[in-house]
Amino acid sequence: MTYTLVDLAEQVGATLTSGHDEVITGVSTLQSAKQGDISFLANSHYKKFLTKTKASAIILSERDSQDCPVHSMVTAEPYLAFARIATLLHPQASAQAGCHATAVVADDARIDQSAHIGANCVIESGAIVAADAVVSPGCVVGESAKVGKNTKLMANVTVYHGCEIGDNCLLHSGVVVGSDGFGIAPSKEGWVKVPQLGCVIIGDDVEIGSNTTIDRGALGDTVIGDGVKLDNQIQIAHNVVIGDHTAIAACTAIAGSTSIGKNCVIAGAVGIVGHLEIASGVTVTAMSLVTKSIAEPGVYSSGWGAQPQSSWQRQVAGLRRLPKMMRRLQGLGK
Amino acid sequence: MTYTLVDLAEQVGATLTSGHDEVITGVSTLQSAKQGDISFLANSHYKKFLTKTKASAIILSERDSQDCPVHSMVTAEPYLAFARIATLLHPQASAQAGCHATAVVADDARIDQSAHIGANCVIESGAIVAADAVVSPGCVVGESAKVGKNTKLMANVTVYHGCEIGDNCLLHSGVVVGSDGFGIAPSKEGWVKVPQLGCVIIGDDVEIGSNTTIDRGALGDTVIGDGVKLDNQIQIAHNVVIGDHTAIAACTAIAGSTSIGKNCVIAGAVGIVGHLEIASGVTVTAMSLVTKSIAEPGVYSSGWGAQPQSSWQRQVAGLRRLPKMMRRLQGLGK
Amino acid sequence: MTYTLVDLAEQVGATLTSGHDEVITGVSTLQSAKQGDISFLANSHYKKFLTKTKASAIILSERDSQDCPVHSMVTAEPYLAFARIATLLHPQASAQAGCHATAVVADDARIDQSAHIGANCVIESGAIVAADAVVSPGCVVGESAKVGKNTKLMANVTVYHGCEIGDNCLLHSGVVVGSDGFGIAPSKEGWVKVPQLGCVIIGDDVEIGSNTTIDRGALGDTVIGDGVKLDNQIQIAHNVVIGDHTAIAACTAIAGSTSIGKNCVIAGAVGIVGHLEIASGVTVTAMSLVTKSIAEPGVYSSGWGAQPQSSWQRQVAGLRRLPKMMRRLQGLGK
Repeated sequence: MTYTLVDLAEQVGATLTSGHDEVITGVSTLQSAKQGDISFLANSHYKKFLTKTKASAIILSERDSQDCPVHSMVTAEPYLAFARIATLLHPQASAQAGCHATAVVADDARIDQSAHIGANCVIESGAIVAADAVVSPGCVVGESAKVGKNTKLMANVTVYHGCEIGDNCLLHSGVVVGSDGFGIAPSKEGWVKVPQLGCVIIGDDVEIGSNTTIDRGALGDTVIGDGVKLDNQIQIAHNVVIGDHTAIAACTAIAGSTSIGKNCVIAGAVGIVGHLEIASGVTVTAMSLVTKSIAEPGVYSSGWGAQPQSSWQRQVAGLRRLPKMMRRLQGLGK
Repeated sequence: MTYTLVDLAEQVGATLTSGHDEVITGVSTLQSAKQGDISFLANSHYKKFLTKTKASAIILSERDSQDCPVHSMVTAEPYLAFARIATLLHPQASAQAGCHATAVVADDARIDQSAHIGANCVIESGAIVAADAVVSPGCVVGESAKVGKNTKLMANVTVYHGCEIGDNCLLHSGVVVGSDGFGIAPSKEGWVKVPQLGCVIIGDDVEIGSNTTIDRGALGDTVIGDGVKLDNQIQIAHNVVIGDHTAIAACTAIAGSTSIGKNCVIAGAVGIVGHLEIASGVTVTAMSLVTKSIAEPGVYSSGWGAQPQSSWQRQVAGLRRLPKMMRRLQGLGK
Repeated sequence: MTYTLVDLAEQVGATLTSGHDEVITGVSTLQSAKQGDISFLANSHYKKFLTKTKASAIILSERDSQDCPVHSMVTAEPYLAFARIATLLHPQASAQAGCHATAVVADDARIDQSAHIGANCVIESGAIVAADAVVSPGCVVGESAKVGKNTKLMANVTVYHGCEIGDNCLLHSGVVVGSDGFGIAPSKEGWVKVPQLGCVIIGDDVEIGSNTTIDRGALGDTVIGDGVKLDNQIQIAHNVVIGDHTAIAACTAIAGSTSIGKNCVIAGAVGIVGHLEIASGVTVTAMSLVTKSIAEPGVYSSGWGAQPQSSWQRQVAGLRRLPKMMRRLQGLGK
């Protein structure tokens, strides 16, 4: 797709300083842009690349536009404007409607005629695939599961029986929705499985990264709200509830029955133990371990950053002697 | 399925206070139960829901039965009794025997006639699928691999050549059994691969959560004992041995050649380094890093819980200055 | 395969003390070796098994050869020699050329006639599979993606459109190459997706463990250098660059736009935040969190090892009171 600069500016509500009729054909970074590209500056770390850019135009804030050597598209939110412009310039090809000849579709599955079912997919009895949905090759959609309108499953996604995915979602390869929660009861003869009888209910506009797993509820459902964004290799245990518009980075694990509020930002490799309540608006930094409920919005952290091994060893040695030090300090105080 | 309350009580060896002929049709939580449901109380956290429950009967301990407004089913282990009753009330449908027309089964694979091989499965040469086993759509069972009696592979599981899975196991989607261990030897020209010549041997009554990976042994096998329960996204490296009835929560990683005893409980996101011996009966709490062998049963931990960022920053700053503080304290002591 | 001891010694440039004509048929550990096996001793931890081994010959260092009760094959790098000898004795069977009848291959995909495409694979439009490559059952190779010469994809691997894998690579089951990076921009209506327009470019001689995920670049590519070795369940975010011959153990996560140098060794379950530069020759120990760029080679660590819960609790309590202690200590100093 190509647009004039003024068309793009209007689409995102930004202000042009010049170059209204310039034709834009693609997006690029400041460093690698060429004539016809539009780029953006949202992180001051990259401002050093501004002066030498070959881009035709830059999306940036008013303050940065002073230093822009090419056409400026000024907005308070350059990254957001860039996201929208990149989407306009690089629209996704739509998949052809219909079921591939090799797909195995149950007679009583309800596949909208505008939906696409790829090669070697399996759609089981009673499943529903709504209008404009795309089920890519190798996916398995279980009995009575539901794939919403305009939702796309990339290759090799598995959706277990009875699970529901809303509209306009995107699930990446290797995602598993609806596997059994980890419910086991101890007995003299070993662990006894607790049947996992709930489902997973996923809202609209949800994106789920590759190889993320979301377990079905034990009793009642695991619930992912509207607009939730999950990165790769996240683990969501049974009966977790995630509020609308919460974003979670890769490799975070949330244990059973924990509830996360709306508009939270959970960084990567965080662990959150079970049966907690996390308020809306909470941010948790990378690799933290959350062991208690959090009632107030704000930023929460644990852990500490890597250092050269020798200084790290001295700190760990200090930590081990801390209880003794504290007793000595109390003695000295007296 | 429906049962009378007295039938259920007999099946699990519990004592009824009343309502012997009440008909039970399902299980539910205390909060969402309706007439005909049986619920349970095992965690005092949920006792607040007892008085208003609409369940027909509750499985609970003798102590809690005092406060039960409906029929009580009394037992010392309410969660265990619940697990068994839920299994009775919600039996799993059995899969139809036979191979789906789209499954690709090697001529010399031995598939029991009572087994089910789903759509688009691939069963390679010499593989064995025993009686009543279920191989769901999209699974690949490698050369000479073995799937035991009444074992179920959910959709899109991969079992590499030569690996053996015992009886009555359940492997969830995306599980990989038998990928190469991470064996590499440094050389001047870069890393040289060490062939991974062992297999994975999995006992009976093992459950493995979605996207968990278990590597084959380098020399000798990786061994998962009977009754082991593994949650999602666990990583088991080559030549690890896990003792019978050990349970491991999601996202834990166990490095090569480490041996874990029987009846251990390893929480989620734990890291255990290689070549260790962990005794039977050990519990490790969430997100701990185990760097040394553990000879005695007990509870082991590391790490600390997340806090508001300002107090966390002061603690980390303190940790960094600890070595200096200790020297100063020693000076003061003198 | 069988070799005489002297043939094997020549192949790896090692020195035999005796037994030149001994016939070797397999490799084994010191403990389980039998007549005809060759074993190795590289880790002094296992020296205790040397005296009673039943192996016909042992690969070991000159120092250890003093205590070797059987034929010694002496080399400065026993593990490397073992890797090469095991490869000679246990060569991999080569796959049959051609496409399985159930594979779905686009008309304009270019499949070398020596390549193998397994059952139920899907090879999309414009994809290239080079000479001697093996695509195992259930793989999906996206539009215009490229699989290099002699590269092997194990079962159920997914390669997204446009991604390129070099020669002599090995990708294990469940690997996902090219899923969208986690690019989202905040707006008043929730998160807006930032299109991920780059690809993943993987060099030659790369091994990738099961269920590892590598996201495509947002603008520009995610790049994995030659000879890189990645273990299982690693997460590589968009626009990460990994230098040649770097090895990364299981479950490590690297956030977006971070660049890792050459010949690094990153242990398991490490977290590395985004937009960092890690120098060549850096080692990071298990479960560390890297929050800052690292300019110098060396060993870096954070975190501390698990201990019995009572001593751990005292240490954490001390950590919490550290800021107060420091103030008190300063007071005492005065």
